[in-house]
Amino acid sequence: MRDYQIDMHLNTERKQKPAFDQLQFGRNFTDHMFIMDYSSEEGWYDPRIVPYQPVTLDPAAMIFHYGQTVFEGLKAYLSKEQQILLFRPSKNMARLNRSNERLCIPKIDEAFALHALKQLLIVEKDWIPTSEGTSLYIRPFIISTEPYIGVAPSNSYRFMIILSPVGAYYKEGINPVKISVEQEYVRAVQGGTGNAKTAGNYAGSLKAQEMANVDGYSQVLWLDGKEKKYIEEVGSMNVFFKIKGEVITPALNGSILDGVTRDSIIQLLNYWNLPLVEKKISMEEIDQAHKDGHLEEAFGTGTAAVISPIGELFWKGEKLSINNGETGPLSRKLYETITGIQTGTLEDPFGWRIEVASEVVNN
Amino acid sequence: MRDYQIDMHLNTERKQKPAFDQLQFGRNFTDHMFIMDYSSEEGWYDPRIVPYQPVTLDPAAMIFHYGQTVFEGLKAYLSKEQQILLFRPSKNMARLNRSNERLCIPKIDEAFALHALKQLLIVEKDWIPTSEGTSLYIRPFIISTEPYIGVAPSNSYRFMIILSPVGAYYKEGINPVKISVEQEYVRAVQGGTGNAKTAGNYAGSLKAQEMANVDGYSQVLWLDGKEKKYIEEVGSMNVFFKIKGEVITPALNGSILDGVTRDSIIQLLNYWNLPLVEKKISMEEIDQAHKDGHLEEAFGTGTAAVISPIGELFWKGEKLSINNGETGPLSRKLYETITGIQTGTLEDPFGWRIEVASEVVNN
Ligand SMILES: Cc1ncc(COP(=O)(O)O)c(C=O)c1O
Ligand SMILES: Cc1ncc(COP(=O)(O)O)c(C=O)c1O
Repeated sequence: MRDYQIDMHLNTERKQKPAFDQLQFGRNFTDHMFIMDYSSEEGWYDPRIVPYQPVTLDPAAMIFHYGQTVFEGLKAYLSKEQQILLFRPSKNMARLNRSNERLCIPKIDEAFALHALKQLLIVEKDWIPTSEGTSLYIRPFIISTEPYIGVAPSNSYRFMIILSPVGAYYKEGINPVKISVEQEYVRAVQGGTGNAKTAGNYAGSLKAQEMANVDGYSQVLWLDGKEKKYIEEVGSMNVFFKIKGEVITPALNGSILDGVTRDSIIQLLNYWNLPLVEKKISMEEIDQAHKDGHLEEAFGTGTAAVISPIGELFWKGEKLSINNGETGPLSRKLYETITGIQTGTLEDPFGWRIEVASEVVNN
Repeated sequence: MRDYQIDMHLNTERKQKPAFDQLQFGRNFTDHMFIMDYSSEEGWYDPRIVPYQPVTLDPAAMIFHYGQTVFEGLKAYLSKEQQILLFRPSKNMARLNRSNERLCIPKIDEAFALHALKQLLIVEKDWIPTSEGTSLYIRPFIISTEPYIGVAPSNSYRFMIILSPVGAYYKEGINPVKISVEQEYVRAVQGGTGNAKTAGNYAGSLKAQEMANVDGYSQVLWLDGKEKKYIEEVGSMNVFFKIKGEVITPALNGSILDGVTRDSIIQLLNYWNLPLVEKKISMEEIDQAHKDGHLEEAFGTGTAAVISPIGELFWKGEKLSINNGETGPLSRKLYETITGIQTGTLEDPFGWRIEVASEVVNN
């Protein structure tokens, strides 16, 4: 880890906190944020924790034109013992660097970024909500800042971490969502940016989602960009199906995101000795399993919602109801196990949970 | 056209202008810019011409996370008679709205946006360079501004127009560029955002371009995302080939950009009664034509470079030299005709050239 000094500029006045039992997702932000800048000459420099504040950029800043940017999403929890907890945060920092690689953004020092995040969390500890289903959502992101109208990697960047106390991502909570299988639009294709966490993937997904919303579906299930046949993922979640006792999830293929929750579920199922297979799976197979009465459960997985059971899939004019539109036992068990490990109420046989020391250590 | 009033806040002090005979592309910006905001309640409001100034946004502004943004690129010229000239600007405003549609951004009033651009140009007339190959590059763009961490269309936007006096886009000028045919990375696929002018398309293209640069190629030629067989376009240009006297360009297929220069060239070739065909064309066919000695010319077309002759294509380890690496007669004739029409030195049988009135009309 590089031996940076994090400058601290703390606010004496604090914001009024929102009611922690009525939190929305992603609408409130805490008193402080972490910032670090990059220039070609200096590399990453000037790490600092400062009051939450606007970003001021030249209108020609490359982020506004060519979208060179990456982000991450993870959560902090407060245990009953008032301990700040993180869930596999190194995986997020590593993925941020994989995204950086794809987007030609200079890599960050992962250990230092995690250290900086921990310092910020210690400062903002009061902002971590504790009711069921709530947490402090963490959004690290990097934007390209050079004022230049030309398609080339930027020579300057800003890395920021902002924090948002959040409630359930879907208003349905752990209740099942209805999802429409997208036939026209495509999220990503091999050779594109689908396995990076970068803005353009999400911008391109809005149209299909908007159209699905009109029809009463909360998200779309994306099919592959080549044949529109094979299942990729859902909005901002990976996807799992339980068919005849076996759990199936699309194999990582370069166009879907390598989810931390996905990986955790795979490890959990293996630990429980439940059959799990990662493979290429077509929507036809899911439909057939449904017709045969073998599609027992389906669920999306991601940091925001953790586990989101799928109660209905809409495909080619047909509604595939899954488990009578109710949350299945495996979905529930996974949700309870993962959130239990995350919040510190369950044992963590994997060493996934990280405790944040309670004092600011300005290395 | 909506009857907006454009507020004018002009600078009394002006910037020092760069040397107009040594202009780079996209590095200098003029004294003023146009801004207009959008909210769900008010629609587009508060159009204004103001001093060129930074954009201040909440760090949670959606542009930084989900990339919901669109842009355009066109140019203004100054004729010998000191008349400000635009080239088919309505096509750009129409394309901006098509991009808006794809990105779920509220449409702008195209006629009003063009009116606003003209007013800005009148204010910034002194910034239009006149030497050979120079012009005032115009960048209209829209960014999503709502501070919200959640994948959904923004409820607020900012539309801006900035201006940059520019020299040649490629340092080669009208001299031929060397281009590498991309085998691994993909720019776009049907159902994606390839036919919209949106940031994510460009962010995703940086990696392949960076790798091509290392090998001495200035740009990549993109193949289709499904089979990596069919020719799409080059970096920020459409592409044309002259084979055995016939000019061929990839047909618009949903994943390539509908270029204004491309359309102008098609119209010009038709007007000249030269054979022109828009069709799906594979890299194999180009290679075969080259082997048979029938590949006479190849060139990229776009607002920035106008016509950029391709002197060499690198494909599967082979270097296809085209017209001995020199600018072909058709490339040159198209360049001279289009720039002649654009700058007012040639007749314009198509009505493409628009003269901007010399007084600010604040309707
Ligand atoms: C496109 C996409 N897929 C899947 C996921 C799930 O990943 P994770 O479990 O790491 O949150 C996310 C959210 O992060 C996502 O944005
Ligand atoms: C991807 C892409 N293709 C093609 C073009 C050429 O379009 P136009 O001739 O309208 O400038 C551009 C540039 O605008 C572009 O960005």
